[in-house]
Amino acid sequence: MRQDAVHVGVIGCGVVGTGVVRCLRDHGRYLARHLGFPIELVRVADSAARLRPGLRLPRGLLVRDAAAVLEDPHIEIVVELIGGTGKAKDYILRAMRGGKHVVTANKALLAASGPELHRTAQRHNVDLFYEASVAGGIPIVKAIREGFVANRIDSLLGIVNGTCNYILTRMTSDRLEFAEALAEARLNGYAEADPALDIEGIDARHKIGILSSLAFGQWVPQKHIHVEGITRVTARDIMCAAELGYVIKLLAIARSGPAGISVRVHPALLRAHTMLATVGGAYNAIEVNGFPVGRTLFYGRGAGMDATSSAVVADIVDVARNVGYASHKRLPAFTFVERQAPLLPMAEVETKYYLCCTTVDRPGVIARIARELGDRAISIASVIQHEPASGQSWPTVTFMTYIARERNIRDAVRAIDRSGVVKDSTRIIRVEDETEDRATSPAATHTS
Amino acid sequence: MRQDAVHVGVIGCGVVGTGVVRCLRDHGRYLARHLGFPIELVRVADSAARLRPGLRLPRGLLVRDAAAVLEDPHIEIVVELIGGTGKAKDYILRAMRGGKHVVTANKALLAASGPELHRTAQRHNVDLFYEASVAGGIPIVKAIREGFVANRIDSLLGIVNGTCNYILTRMTSDRLEFAEALAEARLNGYAEADPALDIEGIDARHKIGILSSLAFGQWVPQKHIHVEGITRVTARDIMCAAELGYVIKLLAIARSGPAGISVRVHPALLRAHTMLATVGGAYNAIEVNGFPVGRTLFYGRGAGMDATSSAVVADIVDVARNVGYASHKRLPAFTFVERQAPLLPMAEVETKYYLCCTTVDRPGVIARIARELGDRAISIASVIQHEPASGQSWPTVTFMTYIARERNIRDAVRAIDRSGVVKDSTRIIRVEDETEDRATSPAATHTS
Repeated sequence: MRQDAVHVGVIGCGVVGTGVVRCLRDHGRYLARHLGFPIELVRVADSAARLRPGLRLPRGLLVRDAAAVLEDPHIEIVVELIGGTGKAKDYILRAMRGGKHVVTANKALLAASGPELHRTAQRHNVDLFYEASVAGGIPIVKAIREGFVANRIDSLLGIVNGTCNYILTRMTSDRLEFAEALAEARLNGYAEADPALDIEGIDARHKIGILSSLAFGQWVPQKHIHVEGITRVTARDIMCAAELGYVIKLLAIARSGPAGISVRVHPALLRAHTMLATVGGAYNAIEVNGFPVGRTLFYGRGAGMDATSSAVVADIVDVARNVGYASHKRLPAFTFVERQAPLLPMAEVETKYYLCCTTVDRPGVIARIARELGDRAISIASVIQHEPASGQSWPTVTFMTYIARERNIRDAVRAIDRSGVVKDSTRIIRVEDETEDRATSPAATHTS
Repeated sequence: MRQDAVHVGVIGCGVVGTGVVRCLRDHGRYLARHLGFPIELVRVADSAARLRPGLRLPRGLLVRDAAAVLEDPHIEIVVELIGGTGKAKDYILRAMRGGKHVVTANKALLAASGPELHRTAQRHNVDLFYEASVAGGIPIVKAIREGFVANRIDSLLGIVNGTCNYILTRMTSDRLEFAEALAEARLNGYAEADPALDIEGIDARHKIGILSSLAFGQWVPQKHIHVEGITRVTARDIMCAAELGYVIKLLAIARSGPAGISVRVHPALLRAHTMLATVGGAYNAIEVNGFPVGRTLFYGRGAGMDATSSAVVADIVDVARNVGYASHKRLPAFTFVERQAPLLPMAEVETKYYLCCTTVDRPGVIARIARELGDRAISIASVIQHEPASGQSWPTVTFMTYIARERNIRDAVRAIDRSGVVKDSTRIIRVEDETEDRATSPAATHTS
């Protein structure tokens, strides 16, 4: 084992970079004792070369040009924190080709170019770590690729976008409409000036793409992940869901079954008393179901300087350990299984559904809608008819179905919307209550 | 990196051993692909040399004598699964002295002899892994020693005994008394024939001893951990707690503050809508509060063949990786910080309290009790007086305090019990609702 320092260079000193630099400084003594050798931050490259208030660096440490990190022969670990799929990719590839290990928080890049980055790491015999790319405060990448290495992962259900969860939590607690909650989120710093990546579900799609690829051992391309954001969720949907004992969350879902793998991001109804449903504000949570481990859940902050820097520094320490013990590549960036399962298109997915119809006010309406469902082998679990909402002239009817195929639901909704009994397009929200049974039943074997 | 197999020997083939052998067999192909080399199980020692139904081993693999594992020069990893602090300790020490790495699920032994085992591992340059010793289905040891390595851990709050949680869940859901719920737990295989280790809190004390030592970087001896089991919790306590919006759980608590470290196991009131309070049946959960990561929570099965074997095999894979890359000892079994903090005696602990008094039925009773509390600087947050319970002649008064010192509470209770206004000893249960604020407030910084 070596005694001298492992040298680290950071590219990008924004919010997360600042947190990482601070953490390495404040926690350095403990880390050195833990590792047996120090981690030395030798260069920070930031194109603006400006530091956040309160952050001081020794003279000469801060530079403008990333090349000063990439070309420094002393630097063994490059930490990429600029984000995006442009320059960041170039920097990471150059670092790895130069024999440097890489730690990144870049979910967009990993989601877009995971296999290429992985192959490059393999070819150049370097480590690629990315814990901070998904749910920074939760060591979920480590849990899946190390803690659950003995398991077949059957499903992941995640609340992985803090902005969406904050907005939906506010819509639920204060009966706000989406636009009001979004405005509030922006005001309080929980949404970007351009929040599209978050509220359209794209950020969540990046994250579930990374997690599902890890969990299933095969690459899940972004284009195969169905995505719907939260922009069309209404206060009325949330109220109707509550009436049925459910809350609405933006879920990132990955399931592996006999027919194949399905990965998707969309708003979903969850039973109100389950753990995932309890996750409020900007927190994240990921449920992992595996065999033999059973049902597990991880909860913590998803983003922000603190949570993300915790994950980045943990990765730096892991890689530094590998540098110190010359054990790099002991953990492959991704492990791909031999037999790749088919990726199911959304139309083939089977789940439960909530349908909300604004109907005309005349006899036979429910019967007509029920017939369209029944004709497509969709069984109804419950129906509630509401008085017209305040300011509206038409009553609302909500249906909860048993498990049905998405294709059939879409067919039925088209037929219902053409039937003349509804005044508006039928809204559908998928229902995820399968975890319920496992949540309340005690573990299967003897316990202590 | 080596190409040939890493050789494993298992000592103890009971429930967990059977799960481990099965998992290595069923998951071996994937693990070999993941690692780059196979893990080969070369010997299983079991004193009874009897196998569980359905488990088959190749001829010659199963032996009676542990020495056949300990003395086999090919075996590089010894998996100790017999439990207890007698033979198991001898086997583990012999294995490490013989240069073999050790994986164990033995919480009693780790809690009793952690530093000695750690020193022996250090001296003989071998790995000691023990993920399965605490909450098998939850990779919490890995999370604390690797995932949160960049953090200062401030507190741990755990539901770590499935038997107790099952009993308390049943007492709550069906208003059972302790003895009834225990009988049911035994009937359903959730409690041992002799359940003392579980219901007296000893098992939880083992586990929080291990976790707090890891988290705080200093050894926390069992004798410094205050322990109270659940045997004195009554259906009435649970009902009164519910009335105040709380549930009762057996909590294992470790806190580090300016005054020192306090580690304890006792029943506690938790606000009903928090995530820890939602943990039902035989499940386990551990909340970890750290800086910079903030509040996190891990949830899963605590014990049983499946969850435990998942943890044991994950450890075997970690150690096999180290064997394959000659990077053993890259992760120390425990890391001890330089400056050891004082361990606070229970009398110095400060928390909130629930007091339940069965009082005489005359004016001035509440005033008298309140005076005893006030005289000791204990502020009352709420009071509820109840009609006498069915079959009882005396009313019950419950008090909820603000944060107070245990020493003062004990003084006050002694004074109350001598005051002549109570018919029975005052019952106290500590209240842990500090996590509440953090749970409902959104994360502090920008999120996505």
